[in-house]
Amino acid sequence: MYRTHTCGELRSSNVDQNVTLSGWVQRSRKMGGMTFIDLRDRYGITQLVFNQETDDAALCEKANKLGREFVIRATGEVKERFSKNKELPTGDIEIIVSSFDVLNSSEVPPFTIEDESDGGDDIRMKYRYLDLRRNAVRKNLELRHKMTIETRSFLDKLDFLEVETPMMIKSTPEGARDFVVPSRMNPGEFYALPQSPQMFKQLLMVSGFDRYFQIVKCFRDEDLRADRQPEFTQIDCEMSFVEQEDVLNTFEGLAKHLFKQLKGIDMKEPLPRMSWHDAMKYYGSDKPDTRFGMRFVELTDIAKGKEFAVFNSAEYIGAICAEGCASYTRKQLDALTDFVKRPQIGAKGMVYVRMEQDGTLKSSIDKFYTPEDLKSWADRCGAKPGDLLLILSGDTSKTQKALGELRLEMGSQLGLRDKNNFSCLWVVDFPLLEWDEESQRFFAMHHPFTAPKPEDIPLLDSHPGAVRANAYDMVINGVEVGGGSIRIHDSELQNRMFQILGFTEEKAQAQFGFLMNAFKYGAPPHGGLAFGLDRLVSLFAGLDSIRDCIAFPKNNSGRDVMNDAPSRIDDEQLEELFLTLKPLPVKK
Amino acid sequence: MYRTHTCGELRSSNVDQNVTLSGWVQRSRKMGGMTFIDLRDRYGITQLVFNQETDDAALCEKANKLGREFVIRATGEVKERFSKNKELPTGDIEIIVSSFDVLNSSEVPPFTIEDESDGGDDIRMKYRYLDLRRNAVRKNLELRHKMTIETRSFLDKLDFLEVETPMMIKSTPEGARDFVVPSRMNPGEFYALPQSPQMFKQLLMVSGFDRYFQIVKCFRDEDLRADRQPEFTQIDCEMSFVEQEDVLNTFEGLAKHLFKQLKGIDMKEPLPRMSWHDAMKYYGSDKPDTRFGMRFVELTDIAKGKEFAVFNSAEYIGAICAEGCASYTRKQLDALTDFVKRPQIGAKGMVYVRMEQDGTLKSSIDKFYTPEDLKSWADRCGAKPGDLLLILSGDTSKTQKALGELRLEMGSQLGLRDKNNFSCLWVVDFPLLEWDEESQRFFAMHHPFTAPKPEDIPLLDSHPGAVRANAYDMVINGVEVGGGSIRIHDSELQNRMFQILGFTEEKAQAQFGFLMNAFKYGAPPHGGLAFGLDRLVSLFAGLDSIRDCIAFPKNNSGRDVMNDAPSRIDDEQLEELFLTLKPLPVKK
Repeated sequence: MYRTHTCGELRSSNVDQNVTLSGWVQRSRKMGGMTFIDLRDRYGITQLVFNQETDDAALCEKANKLGREFVIRATGEVKERFSKNKELPTGDIEIIVSSFDVLNSSEVPPFTIEDESDGGDDIRMKYRYLDLRRNAVRKNLELRHKMTIETRSFLDKLDFLEVETPMMIKSTPEGARDFVVPSRMNPGEFYALPQSPQMFKQLLMVSGFDRYFQIVKCFRDEDLRADRQPEFTQIDCEMSFVEQEDVLNTFEGLAKHLFKQLKGIDMKEPLPRMSWHDAMKYYGSDKPDTRFGMRFVELTDIAKGKEFAVFNSAEYIGAICAEGCASYTRKQLDALTDFVKRPQIGAKGMVYVRMEQDGTLKSSIDKFYTPEDLKSWADRCGAKPGDLLLILSGDTSKTQKALGELRLEMGSQLGLRDKNNFSCLWVVDFPLLEWDEESQRFFAMHHPFTAPKPEDIPLLDSHPGAVRANAYDMVINGVEVGGGSIRIHDSELQNRMFQILGFTEEKAQAQFGFLMNAFKYGAPPHGGLAFGLDRLVSLFAGLDSIRDCIAFPKNNSGRDVMNDAPSRIDDEQLEELFLTLKPLPVKK
Repeated sequence: MYRTHTCGELRSSNVDQNVTLSGWVQRSRKMGGMTFIDLRDRYGITQLVFNQETDDAALCEKANKLGREFVIRATGEVKERFSKNKELPTGDIEIIVSSFDVLNSSEVPPFTIEDESDGGDDIRMKYRYLDLRRNAVRKNLELRHKMTIETRSFLDKLDFLEVETPMMIKSTPEGARDFVVPSRMNPGEFYALPQSPQMFKQLLMVSGFDRYFQIVKCFRDEDLRADRQPEFTQIDCEMSFVEQEDVLNTFEGLAKHLFKQLKGIDMKEPLPRMSWHDAMKYYGSDKPDTRFGMRFVELTDIAKGKEFAVFNSAEYIGAICAEGCASYTRKQLDALTDFVKRPQIGAKGMVYVRMEQDGTLKSSIDKFYTPEDLKSWADRCGAKPGDLLLILSGDTSKTQKALGELRLEMGSQLGLRDKNNFSCLWVVDFPLLEWDEESQRFFAMHHPFTAPKPEDIPLLDSHPGAVRANAYDMVINGVEVGGGSIRIHDSELQNRMFQILGFTEEKAQAQFGFLMNAFKYGAPPHGGLAFGLDRLVSLFAGLDSIRDCIAFPKNNSGRDVMNDAPSRIDDEQLEELFLTLKPLPVKK
């Protein structure tokens, strides 16, 4: 038997019991004739004690030879500690060891297994199995486990059925790039790994499953950005005989349940709903961070028509009011100007107006505007003495986006984006279609199965760009954690959508034929959504990257540096798949 | 709003309520001036009534036009039925419909959506989304959902953490064939889809996760047999600081929990344990069906040495005693002889001995043996008047396997293999190694990480084939539902295993290097097992094929006939992957 208790379990009430523990040597200290060893397992740390004066000398000598991360099994008696450690749940006791054996030795690990490790990112990824020993990392995965358990428990109680959909499916060229899997039994043909179970969950609605969910791996072969993984996990859901309101209420319930169970946070109020239009207008983003205000104030009508050519030629002029920032120095203001002028943000410049403590207004464009002009801007922004207006201008959509970035930056600078403060909302009424300048066609903003709002259907022919969708995103702290839509269940409307999206009948049939055929046999009204589990866990855990809540993540080149995947395969295997490798690009 | 209640919900207590239901038209009957429609959803069937005498004529006319599988929403009043239907939970009531609308029409489905459908296998697979509407199919998936919910709940309570391991991993040529995924970002390199998370779960033990599980998709590119799928689901588990006994007790607990929760069956006794050696000796199989006895009785010592050359030259002579089968006709016995002579079974012939009602013995080899000889056989088999001995002989292992098949056949003929009767056991003490004649080397019977029994380690050099492993299978009704082992946690022993398996150091390092390296940093003793979820659900549901508990299965060529996957992909995509297709074999 390897243990009677875990290393996190013993308390004063266990004093005088004879126990056996197994675990890893976290650290060992020699003080006078005593040796103290912190023994660690997933559940905690317990102090082992060896006393040269009273114990067998051989035992103590053996103990002194134990290195960091050795695995041992120790037997001894639980004793009350002389000086208790209030930091540890087991800090009231220690084990006077009578015997122990080394279950496995350890080389010196390449970095310290502590909450704050001395290992850099790269080495910790290479030795991910050691990194995972650290409390900080393991706790994220424990949170992930709890989140899936609580999600399943909540959805199960609401009669959702978890149904596994296939991982090897048909490749569809629309959308992001698929990872493909060559089929040996069907030479020349490929499966795709699913980007989402979208079509299968809609088929399950056609099948009358009524309420489906699945916590499921999805795959996307994209050029990876900071916070993307080629494989990621979704909480994927679909419901029949529902309107948008039913879906929002159901998953608002899930969010509340998770906040309550995992964070102890009571979200009693219903989630605010914001139209996509308002989100863009007031936050310049379809995923506004609503932990703080600083909403945009449009000044276009009152700031135009004076001598300032920049504003006069602008389609849009918008301001945010940064409370208490009138004291910003020239240097700080220049830094903000540089920030908005970065190519990713793309503003041409920034105008500021300070309201001094005495109520006078000072701006970077004083020569073009009277104090009364500036006063009218400040009034509209609700500025108080000590506040600072930051103003951007130009093309509406670009300027709003840039102003959104500036707003987030100011939020960060003012400490308004506390990770322990959660602000959730629904963004609704997304546009159905997005115009693509390059290909001169409309694309589905969500996906081609998203239903337009019934009242907007008449606009489909005349103003397709103005049609709103029954689509919605859940946004927390500026992160889109989930999104979905009511689907089209009528094959005629679906065909019309495909037409608007520029699909020929043949192409639509080739790609989505099996779904369109299924719809001929009595498809119920249905809708759903999918949450990004990785993002949700990161947010709950206060992480900067989703990598930290994934046990074995890949790096930005899609590599698992721990086990060195992907890798070359045998020629024989390529042969069996009827594939040959083309000459490879020379590595730089 | 689409509904106030589901179609399975209304009872007498709802009488006089005004309700709205949505669902599919299961069937419609016109009787005199009345039209009855059975409205179906996942939760049940409710009868809708239209009465031409009292209702609006237009409404009735519209109702008469409804076809099978139309989707409708109907509003009306709940009324007590005149003649109740005891078969239906909603059979006490019906809805007098005041209005309804057609949410979607349906073409006539290609087969009937009834428990016993008129559709053949192929058409039901092509229209799987309609097949899934059938109660019989949906119930299997509901059971599957419940099994995963109960499994997670049980393991969560025991502090197991569900950790997701990657789906795109390193390819390892050992074992079955991998499905591979070409990497666009790493040209010429491939990921593999996991055959199991084996190495990752062992790494998680090295990481101190202590107790891991995952319900996870696994992949194997094999030539598919009747009951194999290229993707399948495992309940994968691993524990640290355990001996075999701990693992068996834990998962025996899981099995009991599932039987109790899903089937209402109390398994109070501990599961029997049978050594692999006994399983082969008494049942000719490492997964004996223990729903019935009919264990092998060896006759080698007493049946040899007479005139019968077949027996004299046999290494092994074994019998089973089929109770009450002395009355088998010549024809029945010939059929059994044909059965064992089939190439898959491969026996050369079969000998029988009848014990007539008066106790006299009649056999197919009377001329070689005296009645006393036959008596001694019958006595050893415990035969009673009316019983029939069936005897096979030859090479020990082949004959035992053939006798095992014959035993199963007799069990079936005698009705001893009732699907509602469950007999579970552990088969333990598997051989560590299996000799392969063709390649003249040993293979790991389980996998190369399986630990030998400590007491057998001395045999590793002298008699490797005799070394028993700390490996175990859970067997239910002759099906291996799960299996696992205690793993080697000592890198020296692991290296020795690789040597015995004929791995060079380089090859071992190339394939399993990252695991062996991990073991240098303090690997705890650990072990685990994996259950085949598909098999477990099939067994609980009494299914003949695992296909019936998978929502969207593939056929024996690995095709999804519903959405026609796998399929050709664009040349552009191949180009991006640096692949070209070789000339394909001509299709026959």
